[in-house]
Amino acid sequence: MKIGFIGLGIMGAPMAGHLLAGGHEVVSSIHKTSAAKELLDAGLTVVDNAKAVAAAAEIIIVMVPDTPQVEAVLFGANGVAEGLSAGKLVIDMSSISPIETKVFAEQIKAKGCGYLDAPVSGGEVGAKAASLTIMVGGGQADFDRATPVFELMGKNITLVGDNGVGQTTKVANQIVVALTIEAVGEALVFASKAGADPAKVRQALMGGLAQSRILEVHGERMIKRTFNPGFRIELHQKDLNLALQGAKALGVSLPNTANTQELFNSCAAHGDQVLDHSGMVTALERMANHKVAKD
Amino acid sequence: MKIGFIGLGIMGAPMAGHLLAGGHEVVSSIHKTSAAKELLDAGLTVVDNAKAVAAAAEIIIVMVPDTPQVEAVLFGANGVAEGLSAGKLVIDMSSISPIETKVFAEQIKAKGCGYLDAPVSGGEVGAKAASLTIMVGGGQADFDRATPVFELMGKNITLVGDNGVGQTTKVANQIVVALTIEAVGEALVFASKAGADPAKVRQALMGGLAQSRILEVHGERMIKRTFNPGFRIELHQKDLNLALQGAKALGVSLPNTANTQELFNSCAAHGDQVLDHSGMVTALERMANHKVAKD
Repeated sequence: MKIGFIGLGIMGAPMAGHLLAGGHEVVSSIHKTSAAKELLDAGLTVVDNAKAVAAAAEIIIVMVPDTPQVEAVLFGANGVAEGLSAGKLVIDMSSISPIETKVFAEQIKAKGCGYLDAPVSGGEVGAKAASLTIMVGGGQADFDRATPVFELMGKNITLVGDNGVGQTTKVANQIVVALTIEAVGEALVFASKAGADPAKVRQALMGGLAQSRILEVHGERMIKRTFNPGFRIELHQKDLNLALQGAKALGVSLPNTANTQELFNSCAAHGDQVLDHSGMVTALERMANHKVAKD
Repeated sequence: MKIGFIGLGIMGAPMAGHLLAGGHEVVSSIHKTSAAKELLDAGLTVVDNAKAVAAAAEIIIVMVPDTPQVEAVLFGANGVAEGLSAGKLVIDMSSISPIETKVFAEQIKAKGCGYLDAPVSGGEVGAKAASLTIMVGGGQADFDRATPVFELMGKNITLVGDNGVGQTTKVANQIVVALTIEAVGEALVFASKAGADPAKVRQALMGGLAQSRILEVHGERMIKRTFNPGFRIELHQKDLNLALQGAKALGVSLPNTANTQELFNSCAAHGDQVLDHSGMVTALERMANHKVAKD
């Protein structure tokens, strides 16, 4: 199948690589990335712009940083919308606003095309290993059509609802992940300052109700001070911003999400926005006047 | 072995029952509890007061609600301390202040006795099933002596450090549990108000980094509105109070623990302190002006 792929960054490059390895013809507009040469060697076709990508491909995947970039790629000059014809399928795998997603989907579907929002979880590691969690919003038929393509890039592929619900689920995921990291951070800082060995505390907690993937993975990172990303604080700030903006629009109050965003902001205030999100514990340590050791 | 057991409440009664079933002679002072008759039928010996319990038993277990009750049982008139002689072992399985625990341990050890703080996690279900997580603070020799007794009541039995560290670990556990419940609550309220099916969102999140025992167990409770305890909000309020008091004494700041305690307080303001702690989601729903359906 001819698949368009717009956004060959840290996530997009390995994802596009899996599509090429899976025997698909992949078309992209030029994108400056260290992975570009490798992809060209693997057979990547390069065209002039997003419009040309959409004209050439049957399924067009978008993987860019945030809502404004998706809007520009889809509806800007020489954008995807200009190159579409009826029957094509646009899949936005970026993590962006659920509310704007519904608008984008309506505009694409008005052209007789399908639209899926399909943000992912799992980060660079998951993108490289083709083990991404993919949370999909859209219609069943479009989902069925895209499934063989998703299966080349991820596992745990779920159709959670209509357009926008994929993005909503990703936001919910990022709320849980950030707040669980924060919870583990508070517990380990408290335990350390009380004189306990945080490694033993983590071990004792793993056996009970406090068990989580975050306690396992990020708890260990906090203890071993391995704050190289992983998933950067500045990206999680973007995601919590989607949560807080969405909450305002929807009439929801997210008190601990707001608090936790402020802890990320405190990390950024110390130049630590490039650390892994488990580095959030350093903000709690500073608040506690605890010695802050960084990796 | 002759084991004293003070505090035959919802937790203590089944725990003492396991000791009797394990072939031990269990001695207690009279305690009004619905389980008392059953325990008497199983061979429970009843003496006049805590002093008499301590005089009769080799190991004395205390399982009462909070710090002041432990202090009264140990050091009040006709308390455990008056009945002790050198070589006995006092085990406090209540969940109380880590700071006061160190003081209590010193006083008991000054009498030539051993002291372990050994709070548990797992609630009434874990107490009945003998599957409690037991977090122990104290010396290795005392821990080894108590281990066969612990094994009749729990699994995941960990010596985490010196006296006080068992209680510190329990507080850390309760921080993580409360804040993870809150995280799942924020995510599910956000997703619901955005028009997603929270059951599908929970399912999608279970496969990735957001996975936790809380998402599994308490997330399902929130969705199914099964708020019968389980573990009551008023008990978790007590535990977070230990965290916040401890944080103040230790020079630690716990911003999300403080926020989360306020959500529990909001539940209590609506008469819901007797709900399971997953009922915390109702406080978030009220803040969101979301329809609040209770079990």
